[in-house]
Amino acid sequence: MIAGPDRRDSAQLTALACRILTAQGVPPAAAMWQAGLLVDAELKGQRSHGLLRLPRLVNRIRNGVADPTATGVHTWRTSAFLAVDGGQGLGPVIARTALDAAIPRVADTGVVCVTVSAANHLGMLAWYAEYLAGRGLICVALTTSEALVHPYGGRGALLGTNPIAIGVPAVPEPFVLDMATSEISMGKIHAHALAGTPLEPGWALDAAGNPTTDAEAAKAGAIAPFGGAKGYGLGLGIELLVAALTASATGTDVHGTLDETKPATKGDVFLLLDPVAAPDQLTGYLDQIRASGYDQPVLVPGDRARARRNAALREGIELPQALLDQLDELDPNRKATP
Amino acid sequence: MIAGPDRRDSAQLTALACRILTAQGVPPAAAMWQAGLLVDAELKGQRSHGLLRLPRLVNRIRNGVADPTATGVHTWRTSAFLAVDGGQGLGPVIARTALDAAIPRVADTGVVCVTVSAANHLGMLAWYAEYLAGRGLICVALTTSEALVHPYGGRGALLGTNPIAIGVPAVPEPFVLDMATSEISMGKIHAHALAGTPLEPGWALDAAGNPTTDAEAAKAGAIAPFGGAKGYGLGLGIELLVAALTASATGTDVHGTLDETKPATKGDVFLLLDPVAAPDQLTGYLDQIRASGYDQPVLVPGDRARARRNAALREGIELPQALLDQLDELDPNRKATP
Repeated sequence: MIAGPDRRDSAQLTALACRILTAQGVPPAAAMWQAGLLVDAELKGQRSHGLLRLPRLVNRIRNGVADPTATGVHTWRTSAFLAVDGGQGLGPVIARTALDAAIPRVADTGVVCVTVSAANHLGMLAWYAEYLAGRGLICVALTTSEALVHPYGGRGALLGTNPIAIGVPAVPEPFVLDMATSEISMGKIHAHALAGTPLEPGWALDAAGNPTTDAEAAKAGAIAPFGGAKGYGLGLGIELLVAALTASATGTDVHGTLDETKPATKGDVFLLLDPVAAPDQLTGYLDQIRASGYDQPVLVPGDRARARRNAALREGIELPQALLDQLDELDPNRKATP
Repeated sequence: MIAGPDRRDSAQLTALACRILTAQGVPPAAAMWQAGLLVDAELKGQRSHGLLRLPRLVNRIRNGVADPTATGVHTWRTSAFLAVDGGQGLGPVIARTALDAAIPRVADTGVVCVTVSAANHLGMLAWYAEYLAGRGLICVALTTSEALVHPYGGRGALLGTNPIAIGVPAVPEPFVLDMATSEISMGKIHAHALAGTPLEPGWALDAAGNPTTDAEAAKAGAIAPFGGAKGYGLGLGIELLVAALTASATGTDVHGTLDETKPATKGDVFLLLDPVAAPDQLTGYLDQIRASGYDQPVLVPGDRARARRNAALREGIELPQALLDQLDELDPNRKATP
């Protein structure tokens, strides 16, 4: 039961996104994968990775920088290393096809490294970590992105927000960490600029490299790494790991996930590992963590996203009217406005 | 040329540490590996991982919880997954023997996962990342440790300081990140307690779980994770990854790296990966990072440690007199005090 006219049912949104994608030449199964990931982000409250990316993706297909039918060219460089040339295909299609090819190999090798180059935006890495945890596998996922983050002690944007996801099978639910290595997202800076509210000190630099709390100035500047020197080190480590393993671009040469005109030059890396300990051996420890709070439970990564998703599956997803209008405009089934 | 009587030459300190270890039954080559790691930490200015650990290790050997001759029992669980039972051997001996067994396999598989259980303290993970980078390999190293860190929003110490190291071959020098996931080290808290200086707000909790700036109170409490919720998530992810891959202990069941009486129950994980991009492809990007500072270069992880080591190789290592006295006391070659 979906409450109120401003909330949309997730299945209806998924169907809408599928129609929009198939109208652009995306095969139905591939459209379902791409749509599923976008709607999953909405269900989890990660709007920046949700349906707002669909109009951009449609434009990327129209502009010839996203291939609606590519599934990736697979090369097993060695027995446990699958290198995938994404051919500018849709991120979730390239990545999920690659993982499905790699999963059976883990039984033989214990670990498989999957690298992806030249694929469009993968969406939330948490999705893949959950997917692999559901198949009993540990996952470490890394990806690079457009340079938005400044080095610790540096003046300009030279690092992607470079997220890391870690998934570990556990009972009753897997551990699923998915975090950017930036202090905040560029989406949050845009939201502050729109609302006219100041940023917190330390969040961002302006275009000249000076610290600023002016969100409008920060849009042309750089975001701070999270956690100071350590977060910077981790973000740079991810940038280099991914570049060294995929031969993808680094720093300001990374394009194609925020714009609508340039091929994707970032890289993605997945490590799939076969756990030794049974998933239920972690239950007691995770419960101890959850019970260690003051007046409310401590959150284990994955807990909040699951709770939000369960609520949104019941209550529907609230989308900004402007985005709904954009999606309705792209819907091949839309009725002409009277 | 070593300046001043309070500075010791690193080669002489290494020889001293070797004599102390061989007197405890450690074979000469193994003693050299263990001594080399301790002195390397001193050279890099990481005193907490340096020679202060040697008297503790000697007591662990004397107490039967460190085996001076174990080299580890190797089991290739699958073609790219080497599980090592450390048999309570010396950390650097178990780990380096394991890596030397794994390195040739990377050419066949592209990635190898090495897990170590029941080994004593490995020392600085940076050493291993540098070692592997010198052989052209990417390294991700993770290890767990005694519970000293509180969950974000939690009251007590339930997480190790759980460091992560990332090594990536680069020209002229490799990228070597080695960082704990705690805001500060327990060693720093002890140093503040000794000096009678307050901690910064947010660094620690007392034994009751209340925020404190009293270093003495924090010694019985818990350290904050670095970078808030994200650093907590990363530290917990490392704890779970290592536990799931090594079947080692978690949380307050981890023992054996700070005490002198309990077997080591933590785990260690190394991922060895074969890079695709040539090391010199990263040079331009890293130089751009270094040049992005205001009035001084931005540090790339590894830069500072190398500079310190080069200086200490020339100028010698300064050790506290109390530690020198302890080491001299353990030296089998010492002359009886007149």
